[in-house]
Amino acid sequence: MPKTSTAQPTRDKTFGRPDAGFRLRMYTVIFEADTRAGRLFDLLLIAFILASVAVVVLDSMASVHARHAALFQVLEWIFTAAFTLEYVARLACVRRPARYARSAFGIIDLLALLPTYIAILVPGLYALIDVRVLRLLRIFRIMKLTEYVAEYGALGQALAASRRKILVFMSFVMLVVVVMGTLMYVVEGPVHGYTSIPVGIYWAITTMTTVGFGDLTPHTDLGRTIASVMMLLGWGTLAVPTGIVSAEFTLQRQGHAPTTRTCHECLSEGHAPGALFCSDCGARLPAWRHQATEQGKT
Amino acid sequence: MPKTSTAQPTRDKTFGRPDAGFRLRMYTVIFEADTRAGRLFDLLLIAFILASVAVVVLDSMASVHARHAALFQVLEWIFTAAFTLEYVARLACVRRPARYARSAFGIIDLLALLPTYIAILVPGLYALIDVRVLRLLRIFRIMKLTEYVAEYGALGQALAASRRKILVFMSFVMLVVVVMGTLMYVVEGPVHGYTSIPVGIYWAITTMTTVGFGDLTPHTDLGRTIASVMMLLGWGTLAVPTGIVSAEFTLQRQGHAPTTRTCHECLSEGHAPGALFCSDCGARLPAWRHQATEQGKT
Amino acid sequence: MPKTSTAQPTRDKTFGRPDAGFRLRMYTVIFEADTRAGRLFDLLLIAFILASVAVVVLDSMASVHARHAALFQVLEWIFTAAFTLEYVARLACVRRPARYARSAFGIIDLLALLPTYIAILVPGLYALIDVRVLRLLRIFRIMKLTEYVAEYGALGQALAASRRKILVFMSFVMLVVVVMGTLMYVVEGPVHGYTSIPVGIYWAITTMTTVGFGDLTPHTDLGRTIASVMMLLGWGTLAVPTGIVSAEFTLQRQGHAPTTRTCHECLSEGHAPGALFCSDCGARLPAWRHQATEQGKT
Amino acid sequence: MPKTSTAQPTRDKTFGRPDAGFRLRMYTVIFEADTRAGRLFDLLLIAFILASVAVVVLDSMASVHARHAALFQVLEWIFTAAFTLEYVARLACVRRPARYARSAFGIIDLLALLPTYIAILVPGLYALIDVRVLRLLRIFRIMKLTEYVAEYGALGQALAASRRKILVFMSFVMLVVVVMGTLMYVVEGPVHGYTSIPVGIYWAITTMTTVGFGDLTPHTDLGRTIASVMMLLGWGTLAVPTGIVSAEFTLQRQGHAPTTRTCHECLSEGHAPGALFCSDCGARLPAWRHQATEQGKT
Repeated sequence: MPKTSTAQPTRDKTFGRPDAGFRLRMYTVIFEADTRAGRLFDLLLIAFILASVAVVVLDSMASVHARHAALFQVLEWIFTAAFTLEYVARLACVRRPARYARSAFGIIDLLALLPTYIAILVPGLYALIDVRVLRLLRIFRIMKLTEYVAEYGALGQALAASRRKILVFMSFVMLVVVVMGTLMYVVEGPVHGYTSIPVGIYWAITTMTTVGFGDLTPHTDLGRTIASVMMLLGWGTLAVPTGIVSAEFTLQRQGHAPTTRTCHECLSEGHAPGALFCSDCGARLPAWRHQATEQGKT
Repeated sequence: MPKTSTAQPTRDKTFGRPDAGFRLRMYTVIFEADTRAGRLFDLLLIAFILASVAVVVLDSMASVHARHAALFQVLEWIFTAAFTLEYVARLACVRRPARYARSAFGIIDLLALLPTYIAILVPGLYALIDVRVLRLLRIFRIMKLTEYVAEYGALGQALAASRRKILVFMSFVMLVVVVMGTLMYVVEGPVHGYTSIPVGIYWAITTMTTVGFGDLTPHTDLGRTIASVMMLLGWGTLAVPTGIVSAEFTLQRQGHAPTTRTCHECLSEGHAPGALFCSDCGARLPAWRHQATEQGKT
Repeated sequence: MPKTSTAQPTRDKTFGRPDAGFRLRMYTVIFEADTRAGRLFDLLLIAFILASVAVVVLDSMASVHARHAALFQVLEWIFTAAFTLEYVARLACVRRPARYARSAFGIIDLLALLPTYIAILVPGLYALIDVRVLRLLRIFRIMKLTEYVAEYGALGQALAASRRKILVFMSFVMLVVVVMGTLMYVVEGPVHGYTSIPVGIYWAITTMTTVGFGDLTPHTDLGRTIASVMMLLGWGTLAVPTGIVSAEFTLQRQGHAPTTRTCHECLSEGHAPGALFCSDCGARLPAWRHQATEQGKT
Repeated sequence: MPKTSTAQPTRDKTFGRPDAGFRLRMYTVIFEADTRAGRLFDLLLIAFILASVAVVVLDSMASVHARHAALFQVLEWIFTAAFTLEYVARLACVRRPARYARSAFGIIDLLALLPTYIAILVPGLYALIDVRVLRLLRIFRIMKLTEYVAEYGALGQALAASRRKILVFMSFVMLVVVVMGTLMYVVEGPVHGYTSIPVGIYWAITTMTTVGFGDLTPHTDLGRTIASVMMLLGWGTLAVPTGIVSAEFTLQRQGHAPTTRTCHECLSEGHAPGALFCSDCGARLPAWRHQATEQGKT
């Protein structure tokens, strides 16, 4: 749950804000950010998260690993200890710890501790896990940062509001890449690298998104023609989601309601926000305010 | 014809909704989606289409084909049987079967059956057709899904409304890639891979659409200069169709008419959609609807 | 001069419409498109232009050239004869032929005839000119098509209106690619392919425009870091011209004047189109119509 | 400080405009552009800057360097002399030279002189510095041009206004590339070129920004699947900043305030900029200017 900045008892609906005492003091520091201690805790935790991720990244570079493996190991222990303390403290000071443990944040926090504890508790399994996979698990700690960026929630909502449009667009893209990918598989064939339909689809995606790795390229004239069509199509298609999003942002800023402003008399739609009367039947349109609550669903 | 969701007799204008009896019951299940049976039929058919496409995709992968060829053959027979039943049922329950057979959906449905029936009816021809082409024919089944996404119709209409703008833009792009492609063919020449003008045009398209495969690259200084100009041009040109589409979406959402809203008294233009009075002379503006029929031509 | 579609004597301001007789009849066919003969001439000419370009394109393909060189030569003679007739007819039927000859269209038309006439008049020179350059000259015939697409004029005007913004943007891009290109030249050096600053600039352009050919790639860690910064910068920078163009199109459609709507009393700007009174000093704003002529300059 | 075009004494707040005499005359030429001498000075300086940069660029090309090294050396001395004169003149004619020396423009001007003076003053150090680094220092002279493009200031302000949105977006992108980059490092591994997590992150950036160099490509099926997801994600994500910027430009041009225009009577929001009366309760809306000061914070 994103950090709150006021200590209203009603704000914490999810995990349960304790009433008093040591638990309440701990809660205001960990989950809220309006006290000096709370903000300090935040900054410290963000610093630990970033440092922890940096250590994993540096540790993956063979040259750096060769020189500082021991230091990184010690740092890793410190980070794990800190994150364990944080996790235990969170569990201890909320009134519904199980709810926290099951939430997305709770799971991320647990994953962050996993690598080191697997090493302690199940050394046999740890030895079998590829060190790269362990690095991946440690990298997931970066997801703990999402708790501190309130805008992700707004962004998520904006995307959720447009989800049907997005799904339709994605389905169209999938349709095109499947058909075009198979076409290239047929035209070029395994001799030129298109060994199966999934490979053709992979090529179609690199082309339509204009990434163009170049690991697979058409060699026949017909293949190059199909590729040209795909490139122009993908290039132009990018305009569509961009246009949708631009419109969303512009209209949000103008305070525009979605066009579902409907006349109650004749049920015609599309009336401008400032209109007082239905342009079709002359009846008085419902006031702006009343319709705002009905709208918002795209 | 996209699935309808109410059973109004007037809605089926295309293929002919039967009046009663077994045909009507079949029709409501296949072509309409407001009964439970109708929705179930939909879900089942979509599941079959996706499964069928998945089988073709997996079958194209040599390793998977080696292990499951027999299973895939059996599944292919099941899919063909199901699609045949569906096709026959559609033909049987509409009043104008010929019309269905000639429609886009009818042709897609028929193509979906083709590979297996060619194998049965004309085995000699089947043996000659490349297995990859047969896979392509089976992949076309994915087009049957377009019947279930109503928005494709709206998207198609939006594109049709802007078709002149799109054509002009495309003609401009073709002009540029032909001239620039030939320029690179002249400057770089066959020694660097630009063996003919079509190849130069193919390179120009990969560059202008910013795909940049890298299978052909300029090696001379002049070639690199021309390439730089093309890249900046293509990069900037993408802004144009994106801007057109953004404007379309924004104005659609605002319920905006094109700017030809004219005051009948003083003939001034540019009045906002919601305005009731001319901001120039104070006369009452004609109602929204009257002008809507004059506008809308792009 | 783009084809006109009415035969008003006032419309031809550029080349001089003849008064009567055979010249007038020829003029209405060649330069105007409201008679049946005029439209037929258009279609025929467009067909010839496209056919001529197609022949050049096919002729550049070694395999096709090997089989049809003679046919192409004959067709080339036919095209040259047709274009010569057209050029002479244009010169003959306008009243100011010198003006036509000096216009862009006149020069394009002349260039279209050049290759064959060089062959006739200066065979020595012709033998020295690379056949690829001659193909390029013939390809320029495609520019004759611009006479038939009226929208190019509108597009050109829109670009001219925004030219200062475009120049500023381009200068910013040049600044970035010069500095970043030199940086990569320093960091990666000739050993990795960055042999001079122009090469670095070329690489910077392929990266910033997201084309990414791959013929030059960073190999050092620092180089890859700089490249990452450039990619994110270029990716985000594309949003700017796209946003400018989107705004232009949206506001054009809404009949929005540029924000130079100024109050004559207090000289404050930015008044909305629909406002009657200056929101700063309360004075009455000049009517919409009067300001329309002052605006339009971006 | 960008060149001013009127000689109002109040305009020069930064460096101190002198009162009279030779210093004032020098100041009007160097820092102001409304006299003929001032404009001439500008053009001359811009010419020198561009020429100087061109010389550095050409000098980096081995073939050109071989032929003209001496000429370039002489030109470099001339440029350095000119820029030294300019720098000294600027310091001499402003009233607060220390302030100029510490400003961004002052530092750029000093850097522009550095290479040659290092050669004179510390020849030992100069011999050690890579000639390429010296070329980079000379290339920075191009930044002196920013003084002459007033729009950069406006662009900078627009970006500063949206900085929080930009930061949120960038943080999201970093999150994605770190996690996805590590994923590819795990899935593909060093055997396919992904030798460390930073390399994976570099690959993730080339893919998400659709640059797609091709120096690193996925070879496993799972890797190609992850790559496909990343490409579609990056392709779609580009729509977001583009949409934000488009909205900004559109609303700027419309003179649009953010949506907090509230009616003081009934507290309804979302009133169009030009509206005089609340569309909900009929009360007169507060004037435009009063609300402008409340708004503007993004």
